Amino acid sequence: MKRSWKKKNKILVIHGPNLHILGKREKNIYGDFTISELNLELKKIAHQHNYILETFQSNSEGEIVEKISNSNYDFLIINPAAYTHTSVAIRDAILSVEKPTIEVHISNIYKREEFRRKSLISDIVLGTITGLGKLSYILALYAAIKLQK
Amino acid sequence: MKRSWKKKNKILVIHGPNLHILGKREKNIYGDFTISELNLELKKIAHQHNYILETFQSNSEGEIVEKISNSNYDFLIINPAAYTHTSVAIRDAILSVEKPTIEVHISNIYKREEFRRKSLISDIVLGTITGLGKLSYILALYAAIKLQK
Amino acid sequence: MKRSWKKKNKILVIHGPNLHILGKREKNIYGDFTISELNLELKKIAHQHNYILETFQSNSEGEIVEKISNSNYDFLIINPAAYTHTSVAIRDAILSVEKPTIEVHISNIYKREEFRRKSLISDIVLGTITGLGKLSYILALYAAIKLQK
Amino acid sequence: MKRSWKKKNKILVIHGPNLHILGKREKNIYGDFTISELNLELKKIAHQHNYILETFQSNSEGEIVEKISNSNYDFLIINPAAYTHTSVAIRDAILSVEKPTIEVHISNIYKREEFRRKSLISDIVLGTITGLGKLSYILALYAAIKLQK
Amino acid sequence: MKRSWKKKNKILVIHGPNLHILGKREKNIYGDFTISELNLELKKIAHQHNYILETFQSNSEGEIVEKISNSNYDFLIINPAAYTHTSVAIRDAILSVEKPTIEVHISNIYKREEFRRKSLISDIVLGTITGLGKLSYILALYAAIKLQK
Amino acid sequence: MKRSWKKKNKILVIHGPNLHILGKREKNIYGDFTISELNLELKKIAHQHNYILETFQSNSEGEIVEKISNSNYDFLIINPAAYTHTSVAIRDAILSVEKPTIEVHISNIYKREEFRRKSLISDIVLGTITGLGKLSYILALYAAIKLQK
Amino acid sequence: MKRSWKKKNKILVIHGPNLHILGKREKNIYGDFTISELNLELKKIAHQHNYILETFQSNSEGEIVEKISNSNYDFLIINPAAYTHTSVAIRDAILSVEKPTIEVHISNIYKREEFRRKSLISDIVLGTITGLGKLSYILALYAAIKLQK
Amino acid sequence: MKRSWKKKNKILVIHGPNLHILGKREKNIYGDFTISELNLELKKIAHQHNYILETFQSNSEGEIVEKISNSNYDFLIINPAAYTHTSVAIRDAILSVEKPTIEVHISNIYKREEFRRKSLISDIVLGTITGLGKLSYILALYAAIKLQK
Amino acid sequence: MKRSWKKKNKILVIHGPNLHILGKREKNIYGDFTISELNLELKKIAHQHNYILETFQSNSEGEIVEKISNSNYDFLIINPAAYTHTSVAIRDAILSVEKPTIEVHISNIYKREEFRRKSLISDIVLGTITGLGKLSYILALYAAIKLQK
Amino acid sequence: MKRSWKKKNKILVIHGPNLHILGKREKNIYGDFTISELNLELKKIAHQHNYILETFQSNSEGEIVEKISNSNYDFLIINPAAYTHTSVAIRDAILSVEKPTIEVHISNIYKREEFRRKSLISDIVLGTITGLGKLSYILALYAAIKLQK
Amino acid sequence: MKRSWKKKNKILVIHGPNLHILGKREKNIYGDFTISELNLELKKIAHQHNYILETFQSNSEGEIVEKISNSNYDFLIINPAAYTHTSVAIRDAILSVEKPTIEVHISNIYKREEFRRKSLISDIVLGTITGLGKLSYILALYAAIKLQK
Amino acid sequence: MKRSWKKKNKILVIHGPNLHILGKREKNIYGDFTISELNLELKKIAHQHNYILETFQSNSEGEIVEKISNSNYDFLIINPAAYTHTSVAIRDAILSVEKPTIEVHISNIYKREEFRRKSLISDIVLGTITGLGKLSYILALYAAIKLQK
Repeated sequence: MKRSWKKKNKILVIHGPNLHILGKREKNIYGDFTISELNLELKKIAHQHNYILETFQSNSEGEIVEKISNSNYDFLIINPAAYTHTSVAIRDAILSVEKPTIEVHISNIYKREEFRRKSLISDIVLGTITGLGKLSYILALYAAIKLQK
Repeated sequence: MKRSWKKKNKILVIHGPNLHILGKREKNIYGDFTISELNLELKKIAHQHNYILETFQSNSEGEIVEKISNSNYDFLIINPAAYTHTSVAIRDAILSVEKPTIEVHISNIYKREEFRRKSLISDIVLGTITGLGKLSYILALYAAIKLQK
Repeated sequence: MKRSWKKKNKILVIHGPNLHILGKREKNIYGDFTISELNLELKKIAHQHNYILETFQSNSEGEIVEKISNSNYDFLIINPAAYTHTSVAIRDAILSVEKPTIEVHISNIYKREEFRRKSLISDIVLGTITGLGKLSYILALYAAIKLQK
Repeated sequence: MKRSWKKKNKILVIHGPNLHILGKREKNIYGDFTISELNLELKKIAHQHNYILETFQSNSEGEIVEKISNSNYDFLIINPAAYTHTSVAIRDAILSVEKPTIEVHISNIYKREEFRRKSLISDIVLGTITGLGKLSYILALYAAIKLQK
Repeated sequence: MKRSWKKKNKILVIHGPNLHILGKREKNIYGDFTISELNLELKKIAHQHNYILETFQSNSEGEIVEKISNSNYDFLIINPAAYTHTSVAIRDAILSVEKPTIEVHISNIYKREEFRRKSLISDIVLGTITGLGKLSYILALYAAIKLQK
Repeated sequence: MKRSWKKKNKILVIHGPNLHILGKREKNIYGDFTISELNLELKKIAHQHNYILETFQSNSEGEIVEKISNSNYDFLIINPAAYTHTSVAIRDAILSVEKPTIEVHISNIYKREEFRRKSLISDIVLGTITGLGKLSYILALYAAIKLQK
Repeated sequence: MKRSWKKKNKILVIHGPNLHILGKREKNIYGDFTISELNLELKKIAHQHNYILETFQSNSEGEIVEKISNSNYDFLIINPAAYTHTSVAIRDAILSVEKPTIEVHISNIYKREEFRRKSLISDIVLGTITGLGKLSYILALYAAIKLQK
Repeated sequence: MKRSWKKKNKILVIHGPNLHILGKREKNIYGDFTISELNLELKKIAHQHNYILETFQSNSEGEIVEKISNSNYDFLIINPAAYTHTSVAIRDAILSVEKPTIEVHISNIYKREEFRRKSLISDIVLGTITGLGKLSYILALYAAIKLQK
Repeated sequence: MKRSWKKKNKILVIHGPNLHILGKREKNIYGDFTISELNLELKKIAHQHNYILETFQSNSEGEIVEKISNSNYDFLIINPAAYTHTSVAIRDAILSVEKPTIEVHISNIYKREEFRRKSLISDIVLGTITGLGKLSYILALYAAIKLQK
Repeated sequence: MKRSWKKKNKILVIHGPNLHILGKREKNIYGDFTISELNLELKKIAHQHNYILETFQSNSEGEIVEKISNSNYDFLIINPAAYTHTSVAIRDAILSVEKPTIEVHISNIYKREEFRRKSLISDIVLGTITGLGKLSYILALYAAIKLQK
Repeated sequence: MKRSWKKKNKILVIHGPNLHILGKREKNIYGDFTISELNLELKKIAHQHNYILETFQSNSEGEIVEKISNSNYDFLIINPAAYTHTSVAIRDAILSVEKPTIEVHISNIYKREEFRRKSLISDIVLGTITGLGKLSYILALYAAIKLQK
Repeated sequence: MKRSWKKKNKILVIHGPNLHILGKREKNIYGDFTISELNLELKKIAHQHNYILETFQSNSEGEIVEKISNSNYDFLIINPAAYTHTSVAIRDAILSVEKPTIEVHISNIYKREEFRRKSLISDIVLGTITGLGKLSYILALYAAIKLQK
């Protein structure tokens, strides 16, 4: 399937359930940065490259579905967290909007429980970045910028 | 299990996640009618046969559970969309209210991804209608009317 | 795959094995109507809408294959009964004639033995109607009529 | 499920596909008696105990289905041979007539290929006798006689 | 993993989806007590032992996730109901707060559908109490009190 | 594998675990005869045909293994009951003594839990008789007598 | 299935294989109490509530089967230990006596090897208490007392 | 297993279900030759090499079984089509006649649906030729001729 | 996928690991011809039809990959031997060169160990010829010649 | 896990079920030495190296469990025979005593039935020696001696 | 597992089998850049950040194993291509050298054949970048640089 | 299968991939001896017993295949390392030379990843020695010497 797009301005970053407590607990797995710090850093980079970047966190599958299908944006970076493995609804939302999308994970999901190995969206996104801490997001952002030029 | 009921007045139609954008995207799969047009058509038919018909759409599993268990109605027509394959909670809600129910799907779920073949509610509803576009709903409505006479 | 057809005249209804004794035994599962009564009712409806409707019952897989591939008709309604779960030959026959087809089942096959949950034709027909007694056939007929207009 | 019946007169014995060549080939597996000799011996025993015994052999799944559902008899002894492992249609026929039934096999199906270990009728018959050569039939006949007294 | 804690004051009890209608329907499975009556009884016992006990019911996976991670408490008793079998998000929330937790079920989930046998949280809680009606909660409460002394 | 033997005198009947309470509980499954009555009836038949018949019941896997390998007999009839599905040791014992053996079951194990469908000895015995109540034993005895002539 | 019983006097507690060395080895998993201390504590509680409590430990599957079916008691508390996962014979014994039964485990079997997750008796007992150390037994005893009032 | 045979005269070619419409539909998969043209070509080649070649097509499993076991021939070339994947009866028929046999398929069955990958006869024939259109038959014929010299 | 090509001159035949000892060991499985004799015979036939034929044998997965992707030829006949079942690398090489290819096997791989039944290249070649000894190669060569005309 | 121990004196050798008849039957699989001869040979070697060696054979799972946990020894060599594949209780006993252990098998269990390939203790012992007849025991004894120096 | 390292100088990039023809075939999947161009670009970036970067391509599993274990470097970026799914040897090599490693893939392996979804190294590397064309490598290089500061 | 051989002189020891770095990395798993030290020790023992012993290490599957099939020796001791689990080619090589062979592993492969539990050669060698460090080799050597006397 051919995908092409002109230079555009807005990138949406979605954080899934339990990511609101980033940097507060289980730092050995998720690192010691908070979600606010991460969002700030991403926005700064986007701004330097002349993009608008919006961030969104929710613990609710339904709210994430609505954010994906009702927002206006040109590129999606999503860390579905626990919903990676269970949500067909988020898959359907991504399928329906047909925006270029990158899936990111902070921890290496292949080192954890067996059920975390299966992602319900990996086969419908452009690509996936896993296991590199907050770098996973930053690299995805560079890719988004690069791919839209 | 014997099920019997007298003539009653209200039919509830529930649309699951991502169906709020019906007719706007992926028309080759879902057809080009909007959810408003579909709801209107269903209400007209119900009215002609002297029934009240209420429609409800939500992207949230919890809201659908509550709609099923807290509403007042005599027959349920439900298209759980993505939640068909993942929601035990909706199954439990349907089980607990013990209303005659028909499951409908717009597209033929057997032509799509493997995981869409398993429905968590098929074995607890009266029957299922799949793959006939908006006709799936209309036939379910005819069945609801017929079965309540 | 695009499917289109003009208004046509003939609908073929095929009943699979053991349906010749409908209404005589296991009435709690299959209802108390006989196959003759059902065929009569279907023909009456077809006639009212200006269609020819032919019915055919066989306990032989080979005869059903031949009926599907050697008959002249515009729409197929088929209840393969036990062959639903085992016959690749019937699947191939339906594939080869390329007629619009609806699969029907009288009982809710999802409430019964595990092996009845797998249909070998669901993914190659337009759609499926399950569990609504003789209404399964009648709704399929309405769909056939509607879809050919 | 309670099953009870009064003394009756007729026992039907059905031989499935490939049993018409009994005693002619693969004698190390199936023994050296022909199907005619076996039938004769069974009829003699039945006659001594004042029963009528009818025998039937067919290589066609459809014919066996029809024999089961269209005949008049009080007890069924069936060796479905190869159809043991594949025929849902024969299962449905036995289910629909609700006659006491014993399943028999000449060879020990558990010593052969893996797929011969699954029988589609074992859970709906009274019992099963396997691996004892023509004795499998004779013991089933004694059981039929004993159980009808 | 060593777990130790001093005497503390607050126990949180979470009821998952469909439990708001306890005692109103399906009494043969869930008993005839309402959720209010159950909550009252639990609070009385906690009070006698000098504990604060808070109760919370929600049909929404996201709200339960937030309750678990944003509340202040020393011990968690949770009946995830339908989400037991599907929610990785609730598992992640429990993992991240690292509070001693007991999982409870009113009915014996091993007597029901196959898919209810798998719990996504059993391996990360202290223990599980299943099948004893409202006693499941009461025993869990005794354990919470005992274990905090 | 060719098996042949001359006329001999002793038949051993082994009853596995929980069969000591036959006829006392669960009569709907196992019938209302006690194990003593059954043993008596089997001995009478054996005596009429000039055979010695010894019976043995144990709830211990090890004792059954020793009975099989340390006794002196010409034919074995065994109902391993629960050990049918779990004991490789009994399988090994039967393999090592190389006596003609028939496996019997009182109830139809195919109508019960899934795990009862697998027998660890079916592929190493002459044949199996299942589901015919105490007739299962009596028919096995007739077969033993017949096969030794 | 409705279960009801009047106030009765005797509770039987069965400890399965390897539990005779409780408190001597692997204290991190099983705690540091010995089986004698545990039995004493249970008897004291039973006595306070006016019950007789008998305890029994065996490493032999056959002896446990016999204890279950040959003893006289009103309520069974059983920790089958390793036999939880392998013994159909103990399942059959519990099924045959039809006494109200609670299954207990000292450690959380869901945190250990995969094969320990399957219990062969969970679906035939009233309920299960897992992972709470000696409290698992004590809570089961409270339940036994409560349920018999 | 050693197989040897002298020069003989007759080759039987069996075409399974749905092959009677070869060259009429789905030409992209099966090519544009009709079964009559194919049969003619095969007969011509056989005649040039001094063999008799008989062809047979049937949609009935039972008829194919009978053709295999009741005909007189020296070599079998069979395309079981849909029955390749489901017919234990045809397998048994081929086993019982013990003639050298080659299995052929027109299309590459490994490029199609998953269930077409399993053949129930591949392990009992001499060899298999797949995916080469009508050449599959012609090469099989050359092999039959070569192997009988 | 449409494949078409004009008359060309060169056919490459690749023999996988362990085929260099053809005719020296395990003659009952692989026949008594050596690889040199086979290569000679194939070259003679190719020469008669005006083709160049190159042969290549290697026990190294890497060398075969390189041969496939670095050579110049119009048609590939390959017997990957043991690598049939394990080499994704050879699959990728064949995919990347996009030459018409036939897979051959000397022995009937369906009669041997279970793991030999899965070929990693069957679904990407034109077709497969199995079990006919050196005829497998010769027939593949005829097909290559025929298909290039 | 680091294991270290000083020079000690006693080695325990346990033989599982059916090994009491070693050398009497099935000599082609198990060799023609008796268990007494084997025990004698092992004791002689132990004595030469200044060790005490005790041997124990039982057909009872419970007795083996008790021998393992109630005896006094420094090294365990165990051939669990049939219990290798079924006994979690023996696994638990070995786990609880924490003695260095070697698992031995006389025959090559990988050449026999599929279910013999899974050992329930292989992952908790030091190592395993399989298929070398009585040498399996002797080599294990040498290892025990070597590892304790 | 804690991993820490000081600023170092050398990054090794390994390209697996069939990547030597990058940009020459199947451009729709792999893009139109050659491996030389890609290597050049990576070296330029590394140079700008003051790192040495070595590249290596091989079609031989053995050579890659040796490169990994015999080279001198501080960080590994590897695209194992086809060996991703089959090579335990490469996994072992990476495990043994204990260097920080990132796995990259040019195409989205989740959109391709099922067997490409399983990577044998994902659980032992720091992280994985998939599906972003040559950007996959460039982002991995940025991560390597960032993580070593 | 009977195996017998007279006293001979040469034993070949093959070390698979990654074993050339024994004693240099991962010492906790593989011990701290180097491959040279191990080889020296094995040669000394062989010499004392009057045998020639050759050792060979390779990371290439093809080279190991060739070593096995082209060398001259009387007994093979092989540690296939990673190829244990994937190499059908090595299996085929061992099968074709028909030399007595023992498989050895340094670490206990049953304590490691799931995929290491399956060996592709265990069922075709004399026996296997696993988990005893360098003793695995030494015991295999003793067995080779003993078995050739």
